[in-house]
Amino acid sequence: MGKRRIRHYTNAMPLNVVSSAALVGLTNIPNIEAVKCAHELAVRMGFHKDPEFAPLINMFPGLAAAAAALCAYAAPAAAGSGIPEVKAYLNGIDAYSILAPSTLFVKIFGSILGVSAGFVVGKEGPMVHTGACIASLLGQGGSRRYHLTWKWLRYFKNDRDRRDLITCGAAAGVAAAFRAPVGGVLFALEEAASWWRSALLWRTFFTTAIVAIVLRAFIEYCWSGSCGLFGQGGLIMYDVSSAEATYSAPDLLAVILLGVIGGIFGSLYNYLVDKVLRTYAIINEKGAAFKILLVVGISIITSCCAFGLPWLAECIECPSNLKISCPTVGESGNYKSFQCQAGYYNDLASLFLNTNDDAIRNLFSTDTQKEFRISTLFIFFTAIYCLGIITYGIAIPSGLFIPVILAGATYGRLVGRLFESISKLDTGLFALLGAASLLGGTMRMTVSLCIILLELTNDLLLLPLVMLVLLISKTIADSFNKGVYDQIVKLKGLPYLEAHAEPYMRHLVAGDVVSGPLVTFSGIERVGNTLHALKTTGHNGFPVIDEPPFSDTPELCGLVLRSHLLVLLKGKNFSKDRVLCEEEIIQKFTTFDFGKAGSGKGIKLEDLDISEEEMEMFVDLHPITNASPYTVVETMSLAKAAILFRQLGLRHMCVVPKSQGRPPIVGILTRHDFMPEHILGLYPHMNPHK
Amino acid sequence: MGKRRIRHYTNAMPLNVVSSAALVGLTNIPNIEAVKCAHELAVRMGFHKDPEFAPLINMFPGLAAAAAALCAYAAPAAAGSGIPEVKAYLNGIDAYSILAPSTLFVKIFGSILGVSAGFVVGKEGPMVHTGACIASLLGQGGSRRYHLTWKWLRYFKNDRDRRDLITCGAAAGVAAAFRAPVGGVLFALEEAASWWRSALLWRTFFTTAIVAIVLRAFIEYCWSGSCGLFGQGGLIMYDVSSAEATYSAPDLLAVILLGVIGGIFGSLYNYLVDKVLRTYAIINEKGAAFKILLVVGISIITSCCAFGLPWLAECIECPSNLKISCPTVGESGNYKSFQCQAGYYNDLASLFLNTNDDAIRNLFSTDTQKEFRISTLFIFFTAIYCLGIITYGIAIPSGLFIPVILAGATYGRLVGRLFESISKLDTGLFALLGAASLLGGTMRMTVSLCIILLELTNDLLLLPLVMLVLLISKTIADSFNKGVYDQIVKLKGLPYLEAHAEPYMRHLVAGDVVSGPLVTFSGIERVGNTLHALKTTGHNGFPVIDEPPFSDTPELCGLVLRSHLLVLLKGKNFSKDRVLCEEEIIQKFTTFDFGKAGSGKGIKLEDLDISEEEMEMFVDLHPITNASPYTVVETMSLAKAAILFRQLGLRHMCVVPKSQGRPPIVGILTRHDFMPEHILGLYPHMNPHK
Repeated sequence: MGKRRIRHYTNAMPLNVVSSAALVGLTNIPNIEAVKCAHELAVRMGFHKDPEFAPLINMFPGLAAAAAALCAYAAPAAAGSGIPEVKAYLNGIDAYSILAPSTLFVKIFGSILGVSAGFVVGKEGPMVHTGACIASLLGQGGSRRYHLTWKWLRYFKNDRDRRDLITCGAAAGVAAAFRAPVGGVLFALEEAASWWRSALLWRTFFTTAIVAIVLRAFIEYCWSGSCGLFGQGGLIMYDVSSAEATYSAPDLLAVILLGVIGGIFGSLYNYLVDKVLRTYAIINEKGAAFKILLVVGISIITSCCAFGLPWLAECIECPSNLKISCPTVGESGNYKSFQCQAGYYNDLASLFLNTNDDAIRNLFSTDTQKEFRISTLFIFFTAIYCLGIITYGIAIPSGLFIPVILAGATYGRLVGRLFESISKLDTGLFALLGAASLLGGTMRMTVSLCIILLELTNDLLLLPLVMLVLLISKTIADSFNKGVYDQIVKLKGLPYLEAHAEPYMRHLVAGDVVSGPLVTFSGIERVGNTLHALKTTGHNGFPVIDEPPFSDTPELCGLVLRSHLLVLLKGKNFSKDRVLCEEEIIQKFTTFDFGKAGSGKGIKLEDLDISEEEMEMFVDLHPITNASPYTVVETMSLAKAAILFRQLGLRHMCVVPKSQGRPPIVGILTRHDFMPEHILGLYPHMNPHK
Repeated sequence: MGKRRIRHYTNAMPLNVVSSAALVGLTNIPNIEAVKCAHELAVRMGFHKDPEFAPLINMFPGLAAAAAALCAYAAPAAAGSGIPEVKAYLNGIDAYSILAPSTLFVKIFGSILGVSAGFVVGKEGPMVHTGACIASLLGQGGSRRYHLTWKWLRYFKNDRDRRDLITCGAAAGVAAAFRAPVGGVLFALEEAASWWRSALLWRTFFTTAIVAIVLRAFIEYCWSGSCGLFGQGGLIMYDVSSAEATYSAPDLLAVILLGVIGGIFGSLYNYLVDKVLRTYAIINEKGAAFKILLVVGISIITSCCAFGLPWLAECIECPSNLKISCPTVGESGNYKSFQCQAGYYNDLASLFLNTNDDAIRNLFSTDTQKEFRISTLFIFFTAIYCLGIITYGIAIPSGLFIPVILAGATYGRLVGRLFESISKLDTGLFALLGAASLLGGTMRMTVSLCIILLELTNDLLLLPLVMLVLLISKTIADSFNKGVYDQIVKLKGLPYLEAHAEPYMRHLVAGDVVSGPLVTFSGIERVGNTLHALKTTGHNGFPVIDEPPFSDTPELCGLVLRSHLLVLLKGKNFSKDRVLCEEEIIQKFTTFDFGKAGSGKGIKLEDLDISEEEMEMFVDLHPITNASPYTVVETMSLAKAAILFRQLGLRHMCVVPKSQGRPPIVGILTRHDFMPEHILGLYPHMNPHK
């Protein structure tokens, strides 16, 4: 029977759920605040006033510079959407800065400043990141630095539960951002998480249910206007259910065309974002000042577009029988006066001089067939599409959802206008389908986008068309390039493990890619040797080999982790001779001593204080050895080894020899050994597509 | 580098998608027909007429007997819901009868007859099974027996693609049954599939999108009434969106109570279904005649309830200002006349003497607070709850969704009536929440139920409450027993592999559970030996061991499958001496020769015709040996071995010795070795909960 050593894993099933709920309460509040503040700031700053815009043009770059400074100096990791980083973390890439408290802080306030500065950026991606950061903070037992710790959270001190918690956080972020609880679950599972389990489904569902209920309660409470703009619009952000969704063959044709356009523009968007990001990377590398300058530059371009382009549009007479005021002055609304006289409105200003949310609402508005001219839609689409591309990548927290929805809705409405003679479908619904197609073309999600759009707009009858459009745009875009988040992950150089094995891996075996000098320990090792190995290598796992007299022949005992070894060495349970002292060591430690520390924390090599005398003593590694590491034979097909590595979410995999009479281990495979760059570097003649 | 032998797998990505679409067209038609026919039969048989019911009582048992006879004689596997069987198949249990063409036939027509016979059964489970059967038929390249074969379908001749196709079929079934395309995807992933991949999500999404579009086209075409009752009600089966979903604190209290009741009744339902199934199993074992008698008996009880109980209800005066006729005579509707005079209706008859679909529609109907009396709801709930339990398990295709929704909606409405003084929520919405809570309590799904209910009722504003109710009922029910489908899988004795390792497995190692005599082959084996092994054992995989002179020491070469060995022996590539003849053999076969045959098909041992002389010859097993089998060391923790086995979807796992100088393989682990019964049989002192 197997011997149990110190338990490395603690499973915290019930506590996990309880804490998810708590987490969500916490996640939700900053999210709600962010929305609210951004809205209010925007309103106060005259987005909704008419064009005495001379002082504003100075104000926007100021806000932008503040956001950029926050980002550049306090937490560079907070720039961008955050979804690629969360995705990478959930794939097993544990980079400290991704989910650090400082990143959380900058993400929240940078996002508020960024949205207020009038950039064409969304708050959804940052909210996902915010949710994940808070979850990470809880998963680490709080922050010791800021004196926020809870003892019961120590149950999350293992990789898997912490990863689950962060998935819940990401789901909560989407749920709060779009007010789409089920969409949040599906987003977390389809886009964010790398490993699905039914328990995870249940946990994310629990989390977003709490979000929905808390959100609903807030909306109820704020109905009277006691919390500013928050809660306006209710649970459904862009309700289009009033429009009748009748469609026939010619409409289908228009919708298929929309899907095709979405696929092409979507993949082009990804291509251009990639190019722009590479250019910006060169500028951003030069220092914080350059980052801020770039942000201010883009801010000026954005402001010029927003306040300059509406001059191109002519005034349109207000339609009669409107329930809302036209033109609107000094408030959020559909018909902006801008430079027009009473009774007239400027349709381009109605899109540009609004918050992004209101602009989307205007584009989705139904029964307003002729509200926007074709030329207006064309100008707005071109401007927003380009601004969206050049804005992503500057040093502010910036989501991609809103720019993509804006651009998609605009060309959707444009197509609706062009087809109005033969199509019965409302232009507002065309805008919705356009948004769906561009989202499908850039992000390449399916079910989650479907549900998010359904929860945003409450139009179930349109579902078949939304599915059709997503299907077409994703298929077309997939034939050109990858989804935007995958592209960014790759561009950032994060060692993301794909779910499938690459075709060329079939022609290699596990032994082919094992690299580097192998450092092994004996079951009872000299302290000096372990310290030397820890100092001279960056390895996180070391194989332990039992030798005679502890076994008949040298055999693989298991694997020790660097972090556990450091804890053991810190405990100083050394002995003068090579003797087993397992019991003694086990008694000295508790399970929690070996719990996974917060990322970037834990004992460091410098914390150890080992005397010269102790260096010559021995330490028994058996109690901390994982005696059941996953192993593959060196002749195992690399493709199969990769699947094993990926499916089980491993960090180390031992490669053992096939024939007898050789040392019991050939090498260790880690995530980096499965990266295409590594393998194709070793075997340059390999064809990566075969 | 690894040497490639005959390719066992073919990946059919693009073809898969194309064929999914084709499959769906095919799946959809019988589904649609089933609904239509059942409806029409029911209407013709006087469900909607008033009580000249003497002839009907004879007719119902007749239909029931026909369904039972079909089921008992033609395909016993078609009885019941079918979802547990599909679930088991997708877990890797390849029982021939589960997805056979005869099962498909009986499932479709048995379901139509069963629904028409007035049983409290649903058509949803059978539709999922129907979808899976059609997918299986396509995945096998059609049916040779019925001369329906397509050559391009041979690309699915491997386990994984076929499993994917069947998942798509199940999704299509739900999508068609509830007219819920996204719900179908989620059902397939949450309940049916054992392995999730993002490619699978995309494929099921594709499938259900086609279902949605085809369905929408049919509804459009049938709008004028040219296809009977089909298409009535449009894409949303039970629309409740007209009711205002306003709720406050006291409503929440009522809703939480609903969730608690749902959890308790749900787990009780599962408990009773289990008991009833065990009782019926004894009766059904006695022969087909007993099966039919049981069905007729239940049919008579059902008819007595349906036509007898309404006499208990007093007539109620029709409400004024109704848009529909009251009382209704001779058609589907809400207010049944039964024995009442003009201007009055019988509320119990309005529930009993309707198709199940219409009864649900009546219960969900909004703005009809007082339509059903409390006593009526109580009687109907008791009757339906009990009928649902005693009906499941008889020899007809019978879904569980409809009975559970009916019972749940009834007590939901009952609770709504009880709380009407303090609650503002519509009783129709209470009925919906009741249905959600009982579904959550029996089936224990979360996201998929949420979306299915959303797509059934089109009330997005109620989503937070639906989530809350599901959360509570599932949590409570989970503390008593397992979900109903899991229970049935277990009861049927199917070796279902759970996603997680059992706790006691941590105390065992892989070597502890290896059982049975190990049969190994040499790399070049005597034909007689292989035949003997095939005859005397039921093993599906045999380890191949290379011995000197082909290697230095005996070493594990790989694993051959029984099916591949049979193909090789059929080819008769034998040689007089122990020589390698790999090239020659590879040239003689094509990839498709080794493709997985349809379940229950493929070459059998009896098909081989080996002469005495050939028995003494040798066959080179190397070309068909899988040279990279997954292996674990005998001292590997059984829990970790189980996770490896389950996560990678293996059928065989080789256990290799830890120390050198022993034979290169200790044994083979299969699915059965991981079953709790097997392990606890070997180690009776193990505590299964620790």
